[in-house]
Amino acid sequence: MLMPEGVAIDSITGAVSPATGRYTKRLSELRELFQDRDMADKEVERLQDPVVYEIAEYRKPGSDIFFGTTTMSPGRVGREYYMTRGHFHERQDAAEVYYTQHGEGILLLELRDEQSMTVEMRPGLCAFIPPGWAHRSINTGSEKLIFVWMCNVAVGHDYGDILKRGMRKLVVARNQLPELIDNPSWGH
Amino acid sequence: MLMPEGVAIDSITGAVSPATGRYTKRLSELRELFQDRDMADKEVERLQDPVVYEIAEYRKPGSDIFFGTTTMSPGRVGREYYMTRGHFHERQDAAEVYYTQHGEGILLLELRDEQSMTVEMRPGLCAFIPPGWAHRSINTGSEKLIFVWMCNVAVGHDYGDILKRGMRKLVVARNQLPELIDNPSWGH
Repeated sequence: MLMPEGVAIDSITGAVSPATGRYTKRLSELRELFQDRDMADKEVERLQDPVVYEIAEYRKPGSDIFFGTTTMSPGRVGREYYMTRGHFHERQDAAEVYYTQHGEGILLLELRDEQSMTVEMRPGLCAFIPPGWAHRSINTGSEKLIFVWMCNVAVGHDYGDILKRGMRKLVVARNQLPELIDNPSWGH
Repeated sequence: MLMPEGVAIDSITGAVSPATGRYTKRLSELRELFQDRDMADKEVERLQDPVVYEIAEYRKPGSDIFFGTTTMSPGRVGREYYMTRGHFHERQDAAEVYYTQHGEGILLLELRDEQSMTVEMRPGLCAFIPPGWAHRSINTGSEKLIFVWMCNVAVGHDYGDILKRGMRKLVVARNQLPELIDNPSWGH
């Protein structure tokens, strides 16, 4: 029988205790996300392959939902801010929520047709990600961006489409502020 | 098509903006929860039927999950702290999370067999409520207790069993501190 439990969420470090799983994505694993891959390689070298983000999760067999945290480092590759890979859900009815605990960022979303959208990420805002929308988190601040996510255990993460085509929009720094522009290499 | 949205959660008032639904439970509606119903009636009179708790939710047709806040007033009826009705989920695989934003409380849980459990509620703790466990929130502090809850839209709320039988344990004040005791009138 599954037992109730109080799970500590540290809004400064993003730690989940107890966590049932964790993984880290370093810049060398994410170079394909960025427009300027030479610059990504230089940053991997200069910063000794920094952690771009880390996922900690609490998932119990027999439960229909699970939750966890994503903790994103601040940083850029050229004009592009650090970002997550981005994914569609495989299940057609599967929504998700991202509840920001610390820092500031932009949640970039798109449908399989042409629509794109952004939702602000900051403490006190819980972003609702409806079924069908691919989503990517982007840390546009100077501190860690930490959010709690929650969804059905069976959502299914489809990373392939976004990795292959990119997203239609990019979030880039312009005079130190985030700006949304068209992705010049989308689909290639 | 459902659109993404940033939903503001006010951790001081418990407000959800935009909310898609809201309801309030006043003491007169909850008198049956307490051991001392004469005292409950007196408190209804004395405090002009105070709000014991309020639920605000964000629920979109087409989404498999939804979330909201519960905002509980501090207060007691005799030795018993203000509490929610308590419920089982109708769906056998349906878990829930309660992420405390403000205040302090106790989450009281029980299975249909004899097992009871408590989980502490305080900011930074996300309580995991596994399938099969009835759950009731109890505000043991002197301030509002506010938590964000999240679960599948189709969990189904079965309030009847707990209303009829009560829960096996009570949380009562003893020297101003919460104490867990057996419910002398359980099942009656």
